Amino acid sequence: MAKTFRTTRFVEFHDTDMAGIMHFASFYLYMGSAEHEFFRSLGITLCSREDESVTFPRVSAHCDFKSPAYCEQVLEIVVSIARLGTKSITFHFEMTHEGRQVATGQMTCVCCHVRPNEPLESMPIPVDIAEKLRPYVT
Amino acid sequence: MAKTFRTTRFVEFHDTDMAGIMHFASFYLYMGSAEHEFFRSLGITLCSREDESVTFPRVSAHCDFKSPAYCEQVLEIVVSIARLGTKSITFHFEMTHEGRQVATGQMTCVCCHVRPNEPLESMPIPVDIAEKLRPYVT
Amino acid sequence: MAKTFRTTRFVEFHDTDMAGIMHFASFYLYMGSAEHEFFRSLGITLCSREDESVTFPRVSAHCDFKSPAYCEQVLEIVVSIARLGTKSITFHFEMTHEGRQVATGQMTCVCCHVRPNEPLESMPIPVDIAEKLRPYVT
Amino acid sequence: MAKTFRTTRFVEFHDTDMAGIMHFASFYLYMGSAEHEFFRSLGITLCSREDESVTFPRVSAHCDFKSPAYCEQVLEIVVSIARLGTKSITFHFEMTHEGRQVATGQMTCVCCHVRPNEPLESMPIPVDIAEKLRPYVT
Repeated sequence: MAKTFRTTRFVEFHDTDMAGIMHFASFYLYMGSAEHEFFRSLGITLCSREDESVTFPRVSAHCDFKSPAYCEQVLEIVVSIARLGTKSITFHFEMTHEGRQVATGQMTCVCCHVRPNEPLESMPIPVDIAEKLRPYVT
Repeated sequence: MAKTFRTTRFVEFHDTDMAGIMHFASFYLYMGSAEHEFFRSLGITLCSREDESVTFPRVSAHCDFKSPAYCEQVLEIVVSIARLGTKSITFHFEMTHEGRQVATGQMTCVCCHVRPNEPLESMPIPVDIAEKLRPYVT
Repeated sequence: MAKTFRTTRFVEFHDTDMAGIMHFASFYLYMGSAEHEFFRSLGITLCSREDESVTFPRVSAHCDFKSPAYCEQVLEIVVSIARLGTKSITFHFEMTHEGRQVATGQMTCVCCHVRPNEPLESMPIPVDIAEKLRPYVT
Repeated sequence: MAKTFRTTRFVEFHDTDMAGIMHFASFYLYMGSAEHEFFRSLGITLCSREDESVTFPRVSAHCDFKSPAYCEQVLEIVVSIARLGTKSITFHFEMTHEGRQVATGQMTCVCCHVRPNEPLESMPIPVDIAEKLRPYVT
């Protein structure tokens, strides 16, 4: 049985729009920060300011909006890995509020090498990182 | 040959992140505002503050990120309609910078009735709106 | 000795800009959500969807940026009340990271009556709310 | 008589919040991007990705909110310089909608040297830049 990473996000007033609900683009902020939090839970930072490091830029992101999220609601976010490739990871997100499905999403990232003043270049996911991610593959 | 709606967006400093490129969530803001601009070009506002009106909440949004967008670049955005259903519209977005493909996206919206203090209810797209949209179906 | 309300905010990747630090506008999001959290700690919600309610729109906001905030840093935010008028409140915010001063801010809000389809009208702060706020006046 | 720089901003749906008006933090995004646009009009970019450059980080920003801005309104923004110091610039912003005052703001920036892997260091505004700015001092 695959592991999952669980976190929560509080819907802030500034996440809402004039329709009175959370704006759809905020779901992508939530997915992005849940992904970073998941990496941190494995001891991996994506915010390095070092000269040489590994990064995981997104190549696609998708979200299905099932029901509205309202100001001051706490969304539960469950992160799992739908696919772990040699160079890429596809994350899956389930977002609920008190059991009600709010949104589901997917995000695919590619492992890249960061070098100062050079373009990103894709590379195989380092073995130690892949080992940490594997238990979360569904 | 289907019509397209064309607009541009200027990548602002605040759209960037510490990776030095436009943050991925900003693409959804661009798609959302390009969609609204397209509707306005047809004489339809989605910002009504009236008590009764038609609205098009999104039920899904997808984006493939092909190459980075940088601060101060002007993105050209081409909007077309991939599918026009009885109650729903699927928009397609091509985002380029000087001919280079930056991102492609899709967004599906459902036509809904807005009534004060009642939940949204889906409804067929009004005939006059559907007629305006039809030439953009690819 | 005046009371203070204390909270924290985690600097997310999407709060940063291409200068590698938290974008200055995010400080206002943090102040706004810290203010709402302070109100909630007193049992007051500012996210009511009711037809009649009290709200506190901002009439001014100021922030001095003392040193940069970086991705993944936890900012401690101390909220106090610099001035409690009959109709208005001026909040003061101290934002620090591990003892280092990051920013200080002020925000002035005016108590207003919300009625459907009518413009906001200022009103005296209700007595029960003023009583809850008074211990925080410095 | 001092010169002014004039631009406009369209209030997007995503700039609004559940109160039905433009969220207060968006005013700072508008001021920040109007400032950059003003610099560009003088031939100065603040988005350089070069290794050595001059930048103008903000040390404070203030905004008074006079009346609400609504979705789809075009705000006219007039930028002038309230004070031009040896190392710092204080910009003034007047934001109106069809003659109605919406907000006024100020932002102070300090001229700094950017060097890779070194902290920012303040420096006198280069003579050629100061000359371009001087006609806008009120």
